[in-house]
Parts: sequence; C-alpha cells; structure tokens
Amino acid sequence: MVNGMEASGGLQWRVRMTNGSSSELLVPESGPIHRTWLGLLGLLVEFTSKFRKFFKKAWALGVDDPKKVIHCLKVGMALTIVSLFYYMRPLYEGVGGNAIWAVMTVVVVFEYSVGATLSKSLNRITGTVVAGSLAIGVHWIASQSGERFEPVILGSSVFLLASAATFSRFIPTIKARFDYGAMIFILTFSLVSVSGFRVEKLFQMAHTRLSTIAIGTSLCMLISMLVCPIWAGEELHLLITRNMEKLANSLDGCVTEYFKEMNSDGDVENEDKDNKSLLGYKCVLNSKGAEDTFANFARWEPAHGQFNFSHPWNQYLKIGASLRTCACCMEALNGCINSEVQAPDFVKRFLSNACIVLSSHSSRVLKELAITITTATRRSTQIDLSVEDMKDAVQELQKTLTSLPSLLTPPPSPFPEAPEEEKKEPISTPTIVPLMEVVPLVTVASLLIEIVTKIEGVVEAVNELQNLADFKPDETEKLKPTSDYQDQQTMKALQQV
Amino acid sequence: MVNGMEASGGLQWRVRMTNGSSSELLVPESGPIHRTWLGLLGLLVEFTSKFRKFFKKAWALGVDDPKKVIHCLKVGMALTIVSLFYYMRPLYEGVGGNAIWAVMTVVVVFEYSVGATLSKSLNRITGTVVAGSLAIGVHWIASQSGERFEPVILGSSVFLLASAATFSRFIPTIKARFDYGAMIFILTFSLVSVSGFRVEKLFQMAHTRLSTIAIGTSLCMLISMLVCPIWAGEELHLLITRNMEKLANSLDGCVTEYFKEMNSDGDVENEDKDNKSLLGYKCVLNSKGAEDTFANFARWEPAHGQFNFSHPWNQYLKIGASLRTCACCMEALNGCINSEVQAPDFVKRFLSNACIVLSSHSSRVLKELAITITTATRRSTQIDLSVEDMKDAVQELQKTLTSLPSLLTPPPSPFPEAPEEEKKEPISTPTIVPLMEVVPLVTVASLLIEIVTKIEGVVEAVNELQNLADFKPDETEKLKPTSDYQDQQTMKALQQV
Repeated sequence: MVNGMEASGGLQWRVRMTNGSSSELLVPESGPIHRTWLGLLGLLVEFTSKFRKFFKKAWALGVDDPKKVIHCLKVGMALTIVSLFYYMRPLYEGVGGNAIWAVMTVVVVFEYSVGATLSKSLNRITGTVVAGSLAIGVHWIASQSGERFEPVILGSSVFLLASAATFSRFIPTIKARFDYGAMIFILTFSLVSVSGFRVEKLFQMAHTRLSTIAIGTSLCMLISMLVCPIWAGEELHLLITRNMEKLANSLDGCVTEYFKEMNSDGDVENEDKDNKSLLGYKCVLNSKGAEDTFANFARWEPAHGQFNFSHPWNQYLKIGASLRTCACCMEALNGCINSEVQAPDFVKRFLSNACIVLSSHSSRVLKELAITITTATRRSTQIDLSVEDMKDAVQELQKTLTSLPSLLTPPPSPFPEAPEEEKKEPISTPTIVPLMEVVPLVTVASLLIEIVTKIEGVVEAVNELQNLADFKPDETEKLKPTSDYQDQQTMKALQQV
Repeated sequence: MVNGMEASGGLQWRVRMTNGSSSELLVPESGPIHRTWLGLLGLLVEFTSKFRKFFKKAWALGVDDPKKVIHCLKVGMALTIVSLFYYMRPLYEGVGGNAIWAVMTVVVVFEYSVGATLSKSLNRITGTVVAGSLAIGVHWIASQSGERFEPVILGSSVFLLASAATFSRFIPTIKARFDYGAMIFILTFSLVSVSGFRVEKLFQMAHTRLSTIAIGTSLCMLISMLVCPIWAGEELHLLITRNMEKLANSLDGCVTEYFKEMNSDGDVENEDKDNKSLLGYKCVLNSKGAEDTFANFARWEPAHGQFNFSHPWNQYLKIGASLRTCACCMEALNGCINSEVQAPDFVKRFLSNACIVLSSHSSRVLKELAITITTATRRSTQIDLSVEDMKDAVQELQKTLTSLPSLLTPPPSPFPEAPEEEKKEPISTPTIVPLMEVVPLVTVASLLIEIVTKIEGVVEAVNELQNLADFKPDETEKLKPTSDYQDQQTMKALQQV
C-alpha cells in the first residue's frame, strides 16, 4: 500500500499510511504536512463513522415510529405549497411582504398532533387580532398627543403590556392553554404600536396580514387533520393503555422471576434477559409530562373516531396518576426483590404460590382495564369477576401469612389456635428462622397487597371514565345483563360447580 | 335601596334590585328589559369577582416568587428599548423593514433563565447563518437553470430540507439542544430560497438582517445576564437541595406521625394539619421535567458564582433520579402507614423507638447532603458520621425486629435462643398477635431499611458530584484531616465518652 502510493505519485510530500515512528524517520522533511494529512484523514474517518452511527439511529427512530416520518413529510408538503403559492403569486412583494407571514405561520404552527396545531393556530389568530386592535387604538391615541409625547406613550404601553403578558405566561391555566397566544400578543402589539404608518394604512395592512395568517393556519389545520392525522387524544389513549399493559407485565414478570430464582439458584445471567419487560414500570413513572401535554392538546381537537369534542380527557390524567402510584409500589417491590437479605428457600416456597396467584390476578385486572379503555365498552362483569378473583387471592395470601409464624419458632405442644392448613401438611423443615430473614419476603407480600389497593384505585378511575365518556355496553354481556354483585357471586359459584 | 333608586331616576324603566316575583308584578311592561339589565348586572358582578380572584392568584404568584416579576420587567425593558430604537432610527422602513426582526428576536428569544436565552440566541444566529448560506446557494443554482426548472428546484429543496430538519427535531440529542435552531433553519431556508431577489441583493439583505438579529440577541443576552440574572444552573442547584430537604421532612414527619398516633388514638383531625410538609415527597416525584430542562439550559451558561462553564450538571440529574427512587419508597411507605389493618399499639410501641431513630438519622443524612451541595464544600467527616449513625440505626431496628416473634406466639418454656432484650424487660401483654396484624408494621420497618439503601445511593451520587465539581475542603474539617473510617470510629467513641 505504502509502496504503491509512493510509486504512483511523484509528489514532493510522501504519503505513508504506516503505523508510527519508522515512517517519520524516513521522511523527516514532510513531517508536519504528513501529520496534518493523517490528522485530516483520521478526522474524516471519525466524522464518517459518527455520521453513519447517527444516521443509523435516526433510521431506527423512523422505522420504530413511522408516524414521525409522516409528520415530517406533511410539514414539507405544507411548506412547499405555501412557498410556491406565494412565489408564483403576482401580489408577492419580496421577503418583506406577505410571504413572510404565510411561511412563518406554517413553520411555527405546524405541530406533531392535530390538537397542538389547532391550539397554536387559534392562539396565533386570536393573539394577532386582539393585540392588533389594541395596538391600533394605542397608536391612534399616541398620534393625537403630539410629537413629544408619542414615543413616551408608545414606549410605556409596550413596556406595560409586554410585562403583563409575560407575567400571564407564568399563571398555570394560561400557560397550559394560551402560552403561545400571549407571545403572539406581545409580538403583534409591539410591532404595530411602534410602526410608523398612519392608522388608515394600518387597517389595510392588518387586513392583508390577517388573511395571510388565516391562509397559513387553515392550510396547516387542513393538512394536519386530513392527511394521516395524528390525534393527541388517541396518543393519550394509547399511552395510558400501553402503560397499563407495561405495569401488568412488569408485575407478573417480577414476581414470577423472584420465586422462580430459588429453583435455579445462582443463575444470575438469566436475570438480565427479560429486564426490559420487567422494568416497564419505570416508563410509567416517567410519563407524566407526556400525559399532561397530550391531554392539554386533546381538548382542542374536534370529535374524531370514538372521541367526542368534550371527551373527559382529565379523567385519563387521573388514571395516569393512579397508575403512577402503582408503579411507585412496583419500584419499592423491585428494591425488596433485589435486596441482599433473602428468605431461605423453604420459606419462600411457603408463600410462593399465593404470591404468584395474586400477582397474576392483579395483572389480569390491569389487562382487562386496558381492554375496556381500548374498546371503549362497559365490561363490568368481566372486570368485577377479575377484581373478585384478585380480592380472593389477597385473602388467600393473608391466610398463608397468618400461618407463617409456625416456621419462625418451633410449634409448641399446647397450641390451640393453630390454623388447619398446618395440621394437614406438616412442614418438612422444622428449622427456626430468624424473622429478619423473612422480612423482605413479608414485605414483598405486603407490597403486593398494597399494589392491589392501588389497582382498586385504577379500577375506580376507569369506572368513572366509562360513565363520563358513556362507553357502549358490551355485546357479549347482553346475555347476562345483571351486573349486580350478588348475581355475580351466584354466577361465579355456578361456574365453579 | 330600591326606593332610593326609584326616586333618583325618573327613568322609563324601573331598576329593582329585589329578589324575585313581586318586582315583576309591579312593572310588567319593563319585564324583558329589566331581566336583561339584571342579567347584565349579574354577569358584570360575576366577571368582577372572577377577575378579582384571578388577580389575587396572580398577585400571590408574584409575591411567592419575585424572580418571575423581575423577569417580566426585564422583558418589558428589552422590548421597549429595541422598539424605540428602531422607531426613532432613520433607517427604519415600516413594519416590513428591519424592526420586525429586532422586535421578533427579542420577543421570541428572551427566556426566563440566562441559559435558555443564550441557547435560543445562539440557535437563532446559527440557524439563520447556516440556512441563509445554503438557501443562497440553492437560489443561485435555481436561477441558473432556467425559468421552467426554477420553481421545481426551489420547491423540492424546500420539501426535502424542511422534512429532514423536522425529522431531526425528533432525535433526542438534537431536540434537547438544537430544537429551536432547526426551526429557524427551516424558516430562514424557506424564506430565502423562495424570495424573488437576485443573489447580489440577497447578500446585502442578509447582512442587514443578520446585524438586526445580532443586535436583538445581544440586547437580550446582556439584559438577561446583567440585570438580576436568573441562572438555570442555580435553579437546578436549588431545586435539588430543596427536594432533599422536602424528602427529609416528609420522612421524618410521616414516621413520627405514625408512631405518635397511637398515643392520641382517634385524633384524626390533627392528621391533616401537617399534610403539606408530609406530602413534600410528591413534589420530588414530579420534578423530573423541571430538572431536565434546567440541566439542559445550564450547559449553555458561562461561569457564574460557584459554577464553572463545564460544571457537571448531568450529575445533578443522577442525584435527582436517586432522590426519586427514594420518594417512590416514601409513597409506598405512606400507603402502609395509611393502611386499614394496623398493628396493636403494644407491638407498635415495641418498634417505635428504633423506627423513629432510624428515620431521624436518615433525614439527617439527607439534610447534611443538602448542606454539602449548597455550600459546595467537602464535608466527608460529618456525612460519614451521619451515614454510620444511620447504619447503626438500621442494625438496631433489625435487632428489634429479630426479637419480634416472641410477641407473635407465646414464648415456649425451652427457648434457648431468646434475645437478651427479652429477658431484661418482660412484655406486659402476652397476647398472641396474628402475624397479619403486624405485617404493615414490619413493612414500614422494611421500607425504612429500603429507604436507607436508596439514601446510600444518593450519598454516592453526591460524593461523585463533589469529586467532579471539585468542591472546596471544609474549613472546620482541617483540624481533623483524616477522614479514614477507623479514625472516625475512634472520634465517635471519644465524642460519646
């Protein structure tokens, strides 16, 4: 390689792709250039590899969520349409003319979800109209008051209103809904009130400017609603149900893994394998921001699919909050599961069955709730049954816990209150276990019971949602229309027979 | 009142501020007008009261955080300066001229913290320069290729680059730092490439526009840095230490409250009193978004106060994350504390002391850590001592837990392994307690131990921070420079003597 390059190039400086010192000894006069060249080459290689990595990541992002790619194409489309429209229109007057406002509107207003686009569009129009009218008024007053006071009036009005509008952006209710409108208000007010035009000319200008903004915003709204729309409401809906499923899988996975481990003792490598689904609850902990944003934008969206205009989006936030308290318990549970002190296997085995049954029932309830929300049907019977199963499992676990002390101390001979289970199956290992070793296990059981309480909160929130959003009755439940508790108990008893 | 109004007004329609039907009987002909008037008056009163409420809230917000008010005044100031400057300057050419860019820059770029303002300013300038040069190039190519191909080249370049830049805004690293730059890139590119100007005129325009933007951004940067600056880094710093203190107070409060209740049984009303400080941990759970934002902006800030340019802001995020896992355990703990099943008082009393000592030691560690961060001093000795105390308290609690089973079942006569504490103080109530009733209490103890583990994680993260940020050594510790574990133990022993 080196020889070939030397042969082919009759150049003053010798390119040497060698590794290190020997090359520098051979060509001492071309040292700096050589080194620069090598440095540049290295930079290029590094840059190329970095760029490839970046591109791969971006590609994976696009493949992972095609909606994002669609959004980008939509933005490109809207911008091209509006640009070419103003480029070819005769009323075009250069960059300073109207095209500016149309292009700017599209760039600034076109957002990922329909709700966000609508919110920004309406904010932009309202802010412009309100500030424009106010500014024309102030402008007129200032122009009447003589040349000396004009800048004072203009300056102080800009100062006062800009400060007030900026402050309003800190107020939570305004920040959530009208933040962008307040910014546009400040912008328009300052621009108009310091403009040198006469009031009559301002009216004419306001007309063209408003119509340009209206064209820009309507184009954005139309494209975002008609071409593969991405609804904030639907995203929120999906996020909540996905979080429920993640939580259910985490719960199921963690508990099963914990009690499975004792069989394959020391097999730690397997632990990492399913870590991703086990740690799904962490996503739930961090999704508050996304939920708030989606709920905020969903309010602006018109009726679409199963959602009405006044769909109770706030209720989704409540469900999200109760899911998060559940995820918090999962975090604590995970801590206990990975605790250093672990109960001896035979004690673990003693609680194993009850815990696994409880966790699987709990996760089933969560999955049922996810189905209820996804299909927007009242599935009271199924859910009530699952909740009953879950409660039964809690009682079973509590019963098992009650008989645990017999493992801790050797059963004394006169023991009148020994539970019946004891007598049936004598425990094979009569070792005395210090309570300390059992504490993490008891905590796991107790946190599972705590998680059930939190899940009951989720059930309540979902029930409220199905009342507020008026979910349609389930077709399959029409055969057995009574959703009364007593009847269910009877049904369940019948099913078990 | 009514009579007075009738007497004073000789009006056709009678104003009657009465309540209901008798008034309508007296003036049947003015019924609709009367009702409208009353309705309007009602609306006015309602509006006034709503406005007053809103104003009160806003006032409270301002009093609560004067920094926000200062920010508003700064925005007003910047905007007034730039408006009047362009209003009075001779090169001013109306709203379409340069003033637009200066005013717009100030409105859009001026943010709450210095970091955010700097980030937006630099993004705006970079985006404009890069997109402007690229667009002039594309514009030149398009203008050379004949009238037929010009719009095609322009349109497709806008489409491609706008789509690509929009997509880049989804990539997390770009979204965090260059989101605004990407938007400005799209805006400038579209504006310039579809402008009808010749390339030579574009250069001149670009010059004035850039200088206008530069004036706007430098004004913003100067005002935000020189007039009562609000540093994102300092806000992050404060947020983290405040969260530590909140967590410490919550922990202390919850545990004390839990064990105090048994003395004043049934005194539930008192519970709500300190709810606010007890629930401080909930703020910690929800502060991820704020932390991320502040850390993101803090990176743009120059050295200020105790912070260098390359201050390890990411480490604050790590501390925040470990505080949040701690807060999660608090949430679970709170669930157990408010659980329906509660241990009998005498069992509670059995663990009470150990739990309260542990929680107070834990919260002291958190408070010490907060002081360490606030003062930016290495206080290894104090912290190590507090951590040791905390660990000792854990062992004490574990020992107490070990002797708990004796409460659960009556102590059998041949009991060789009974702990010594037992023998010293015979328990007054020899009742058999079902384990089920003790489970929440054991869980509380276990979660307290879990919280200690999480706090150790926080200690580690803070230690890493003090190494990364090169905290100054504590003056008081110079007298006892050895921070070795053994020496501390000796010192502690000496202190106790």
